[in-house]
Amino acid sequence: MSLAQPENKTGQRLLLTPGPLSTSQTVKDAMLIDIGSWDIDCIEVVKKIREGLMALAPGSETCTLLQGSGSYAVEAVLGCAVSDSDKLLILNNGAYGNRMRLIAEASRIPFQIHIDPEDTPHDPKVLDEILDADQSITHVACVHGETTTGQLNPIGELGDIVKKHGRRFIVDAISTFGSYPIGTGEEIDFERGPIDHLIGSANKCVEGVPGFAFILSKISAVQAMKGQARALSFDIFHQWEYMERTGQFRFTPPTHVLLAFEQALRELDAEGGPEARGQRYKKSHQRLVKGMRELGFKPYVKPEHQSHIITAFYFPSDRFEFSSFYECLHKEGYIIYPGKLSDIDTFRIANIGQLDHEDVDGLLQAIQRVRLELKSW
Amino acid sequence: MSLAQPENKTGQRLLLTPGPLSTSQTVKDAMLIDIGSWDIDCIEVVKKIREGLMALAPGSETCTLLQGSGSYAVEAVLGCAVSDSDKLLILNNGAYGNRMRLIAEASRIPFQIHIDPEDTPHDPKVLDEILDADQSITHVACVHGETTTGQLNPIGELGDIVKKHGRRFIVDAISTFGSYPIGTGEEIDFERGPIDHLIGSANKCVEGVPGFAFILSKISAVQAMKGQARALSFDIFHQWEYMERTGQFRFTPPTHVLLAFEQALRELDAEGGPEARGQRYKKSHQRLVKGMRELGFKPYVKPEHQSHIITAFYFPSDRFEFSSFYECLHKEGYIIYPGKLSDIDTFRIANIGQLDHEDVDGLLQAIQRVRLELKSW
Repeated sequence: MSLAQPENKTGQRLLLTPGPLSTSQTVKDAMLIDIGSWDIDCIEVVKKIREGLMALAPGSETCTLLQGSGSYAVEAVLGCAVSDSDKLLILNNGAYGNRMRLIAEASRIPFQIHIDPEDTPHDPKVLDEILDADQSITHVACVHGETTTGQLNPIGELGDIVKKHGRRFIVDAISTFGSYPIGTGEEIDFERGPIDHLIGSANKCVEGVPGFAFILSKISAVQAMKGQARALSFDIFHQWEYMERTGQFRFTPPTHVLLAFEQALRELDAEGGPEARGQRYKKSHQRLVKGMRELGFKPYVKPEHQSHIITAFYFPSDRFEFSSFYECLHKEGYIIYPGKLSDIDTFRIANIGQLDHEDVDGLLQAIQRVRLELKSW
Repeated sequence: MSLAQPENKTGQRLLLTPGPLSTSQTVKDAMLIDIGSWDIDCIEVVKKIREGLMALAPGSETCTLLQGSGSYAVEAVLGCAVSDSDKLLILNNGAYGNRMRLIAEASRIPFQIHIDPEDTPHDPKVLDEILDADQSITHVACVHGETTTGQLNPIGELGDIVKKHGRRFIVDAISTFGSYPIGTGEEIDFERGPIDHLIGSANKCVEGVPGFAFILSKISAVQAMKGQARALSFDIFHQWEYMERTGQFRFTPPTHVLLAFEQALRELDAEGGPEARGQRYKKSHQRLVKGMRELGFKPYVKPEHQSHIITAFYFPSDRFEFSSFYECLHKEGYIIYPGKLSDIDTFRIANIGQLDHEDVDGLLQAIQRVRLELKSW
């Protein structure tokens, strides 16, 4: 790599993106070894990762790892859980809810969709009415934290409704898993709620590097998938059964990425677990929003529904050009993220990964300099 | 990691497996940086990788990268190429030909299968007869080097037959791509042959780390896939079209694995390309087979069909236990591979990755010590 190395704390550009994110040096260093995927060395890493993930999700009964990105795991779970004679209800209030629709269409999964506005969390009462009215719905799928906006959906209350109706509940918690959304009442809790499958990804709040995803499940929900897969690679029952029996992946796993994740889990524990990590993220997020408001940027999501992970900001003026803004910050050593809303001009700043409120201060100072340079707001 | 570090050249155990393999320190070091998947830093890496791969496959017209293992890419290509009204002919003489059958069944791809014995390459004349007799076959898929046995199939001649009949040809070259099988007449050659899609993987003879696969294609063959995907994540047309337009992956890629692969391509070039690498592998393979014969092990595949990548050996006696043999070699710092043949007891030793004939000598000496210890042959 011949990347220019800006002069910041890490000696690398700081990623204020929803993952890949800036990881610790020790997480990256864990990748400096080649292990055999069939070997006991790898089997032990897989075991530690599965146990570590289950410990982070009280009440979860088993864990399946899957090569690829988080969306792969969403497609695999939906494709295996929902048979040709079942029907999936997708709750959608952003790009990742919409991705479930695209998955259902491509994977030929019977489904219907309920759409809420991008700035509005799903309403448990409305879900109650939908499930009352349509007995043919067998599964409900929902995104926990919509990366489009940084908005949280109330998976606890939604789960209670799904449970009341005796349907299965699938949660995409890719953007949130590993850091509790403190005080929102929207914590991930298999014990309280009726979550059947919860999907997460290596390169999010656990702060690993990208390359695999994971599914935390009730065992009965995995067993119900037997023979229902729509792709061999995405056969979660087979992957789980093989992993239980041999401790291995069916196909070659990203061994170095697994080693990094094992180290990331250790560091999450050392930090004090998802609650302590949530507090760090919350502090960074609060500093970010306060500073951005002072610099003329307004957040898109209402504070009561806003996660502490990623924040969407309105463009501050008609003359504002995201590409110039992005490039200036890139030169300053900061990588931010474009918007993904349907109709409204926004961009996004995430504050997960190895950074804290002081890094946010650094970013805010850089944005201040860029404002003076660009003079577009 | 708390792996015991055997005292060998690399300070790590040497992987004599078909991938993941022992990579160079510089390939691993390339992973020590976090880049944003949406950022120009990543776009440049993706561009270099696609161009580098096409340069290794003369006559290929485009390249698509796909997150996950090699089998993911095989499933994606078969699922997108073969529509509901098409029919795939799978040529099978080992576990990876058989995996194509499992893929076709799971992904609901219309197919028929032709099975040859595991020690026999596919015969172009037989293929000619099959295609003559069945006009409904639209696609033929074949494994180049069967990792089950280390046997090569004559993709050049098979391709000529497919071309003569005007069908499409899909080649799984996962185990071979990056190292020419010198002097066999079975080199990968888009210009001569009618290959439509050729699938490779990051952690094989290019000597990167595992985490993504790649597909080298004729552009018309990718365009013919439009709208035919059986899974969103495996939509090769969409992945290709998005990559062409934006330089990015649709979903989060394994950024660190990409950085390692970019470096691995550079090192393949520095070594002298696939021909020089093939010569190194061939020398290691010849040393391996000679030494193993002296130690009482007979190779399974006939020399004229044997690749220089992986070699299957018969168990040397009835008292031979693979698990004890494996564990002893593990302690010595060498990782070998179990067999995968249907009915015959074999194990496998690969000689790809950052190792040469001197490492093979080290392995042979270790096996000699293990023989004195185990006394089982």
